[in-house]
Order: sequence, then C-alpha cells, then structure tokens
Amino acid sequence: MGESKIIYQNRHITLREDRVSDRKGKEHVFAVASVNSGAAVLPMDEEGNVYLVKQFRYALGKDSIEIPGGGLDSQEKPLDIAKRELLEELGIKALQWIHLGFVNSLTSTVVHREDLFLARGLEFHTPSPDETEELTMVKMKFSEAVKLVMQSHITHGPSCVLILKTNEFLRSRAEIF
Amino acid sequence: MGESKIIYQNRHITLREDRVSDRKGKEHVFAVASVNSGAAVLPMDEEGNVYLVKQFRYALGKDSIEIPGGGLDSQEKPLDIAKRELLEELGIKALQWIHLGFVNSLTSTVVHREDLFLARGLEFHTPSPDETEELTMVKMKFSEAVKLVMQSHITHGPSCVLILKTNEFLRSRAEIF
Repeated sequence: MGESKIIYQNRHITLREDRVSDRKGKEHVFAVASVNSGAAVLPMDEEGNVYLVKQFRYALGKDSIEIPGGGLDSQEKPLDIAKRELLEELGIKALQWIHLGFVNSLTSTVVHREDLFLARGLEFHTPSPDETEELTMVKMKFSEAVKLVMQSHITHGPSCVLILKTNEFLRSRAEIF
Repeated sequence: MGESKIIYQNRHITLREDRVSDRKGKEHVFAVASVNSGAAVLPMDEEGNVYLVKQFRYALGKDSIEIPGGGLDSQEKPLDIAKRELLEELGIKALQWIHLGFVNSLTSTVVHREDLFLARGLEFHTPSPDETEELTMVKMKFSEAVKLVMQSHITHGPSCVLILKTNEFLRSRAEIF
C-alpha cells in the first residue's frame, strides 16, 4: 500500500510521514502527528460548582483554563487516567463517574482521542501535581463555565466539548445550575 | 531564552523542537506541531436542517461526518475561508454569518485555531470540491446532529464544539429545532 516513516518521536508526540498510492496509482504524502490519547474530567459538586485548572500552555503561549486531564502512560483505561489526574491535579476523588463519550481533536493531520467524564459526589483531599506542572485550581459556577466557552475565554477543544456536553446532559435530566 | 529547530514542514503541518530553560536554569524540550489555522461553518436552513460533510479522514483511518471547513492558504480572514469552503464543498452561499468564537484543538503539543461560524439564509449552487477531496453531503435535522455529537458518532473536535455552541446560541434566542 505504501511506506511509513517515523520522522520524530518523544514521550508526548510522534510525527510520521506516509506515502500512499490511491486507486489511480497516484502517490500522496501524508504527515500525521500522533498525540498520546488521554482522558479528562469535569468535577461538579452538589451546588453546581465546577473545578477547573489554570496553567501555562506552551503550544498556546499563554495561560489556559481547562478541565483536569492527562495522557495515557501505557495501556491504562481512560477512566483510570481521569481518576488519577483529578486526584493529582486538584486533590479530588469522586463517587460517581459518567462517561460522556470522546472527541478526536483533529481528524486531518493529528491523531488524538480524549475520553470525557463528568464526576459527581466530590471528596476533597490534598493535590500532588508532578513537578513540571504549575497548576491553579479555578472554582466557578457551571453556568459561568458555559459562558466562558461561549465567549471563547475557554478555548481548549476537549474542555469546550465536555462543558457543552455536560450542559446538554444536565438539561436532558432537567438539572439546571 | 532557548533554541527552536524546525524538524519537519509541509503544506499542512510543521513540527518544531524548542529547548527552553526555566527560571531555575533547568532545560526542557518541547516538540510542538503547528497545524494551519482554519475556519469551519455550520450551514442551517429555515427548517432547521444542517448540511454536513462525510469524508475519509486519513489520520482517523475512517469516514468522519464534520462541518465544512478548511485551512488558511495565506493571510485570508477566517470568514473568507468559511465562505469559500462552504461554496466549494457543498455549493452553498449564505446571507447571514454569525461568528461563534474559536477553538484551540489542543493546547499542550499542537498549535491550531479554528474559527467557527453559523450560516443562515442558504442559497444552493453547484459544489466544486478540489480533486483530492471526496466528499458526500449529509443533510439532517439539527437535533439529530446534536444527538450524533452526544453519542460520539460525530467526534471531530471543532464540529462538536460548533454544533453544541449553536445549540446553546439558538436556546438563548428561544429558537428550538
């Protein structure tokens, strides 16, 4: 079918270049970046507050408010990653986990899947972020998070999708915060 | 501050590796993939039907239903790209364009911004997709598109965000389809 060559690889991202012939025999070159798949979570308490993470994002060049989450280290299950990241980053454990599907961040040149969870029944402990992460917890009303997405103050793709999916999910259950 | 090296570059994607020292003098290596910024549009007619695009996505390895859109060729404005892509891919012109903000697909390792538009007042012409694109138009009720996002049958990040933002936008105007 064609050849595939690894151009670059580190712990987070792999770039490969594929040469593929189409049905007419014409060769096409595709460069595809694979970013480790991950899982992310929106923690929501009984009063309708959500707990987000503010951190400097190198690729964005500025601070970004996002849902807590992280990449798969190995063959972990998405739910296990979401639980670990929520505890490490914000010190939160949750009794109820609702899977709200997944998102492929881009589909043309980037391979990345992020599974999305809503977490309820929160218990607060002490966070233990790893040393490279400088995080600030941001607590806000859920309706404020929706507003920040609508106004493009929250722009991180998986965060936008999970916050708006949660909005739709709560509406379908007639829960309004 | 550090050095930046281009590892790979083609028409769609650039991979660079940056070596940056933090405040304590420790060196960090960041690999960042830049994907051309773009614009995408959800065209909606007077009956609440939306017009989406089904196409094979190489990085995903399968067909994907997405909003029409495309990347910036040069210094084009997002609105101009959205208008061009809607006409090329689906043969649709629109009288009313509503900017619903933008999304950064990922913020840790990928640089990419997609501006999002809702288009109303549709006029149907003949599409003229470029030769590398094999597209099928998919017409459905807007409520069906929301359902496909909620059920993770539509998973392309910017498409999920725009469909759910449109849902919220229409609700705020008490327009229900």
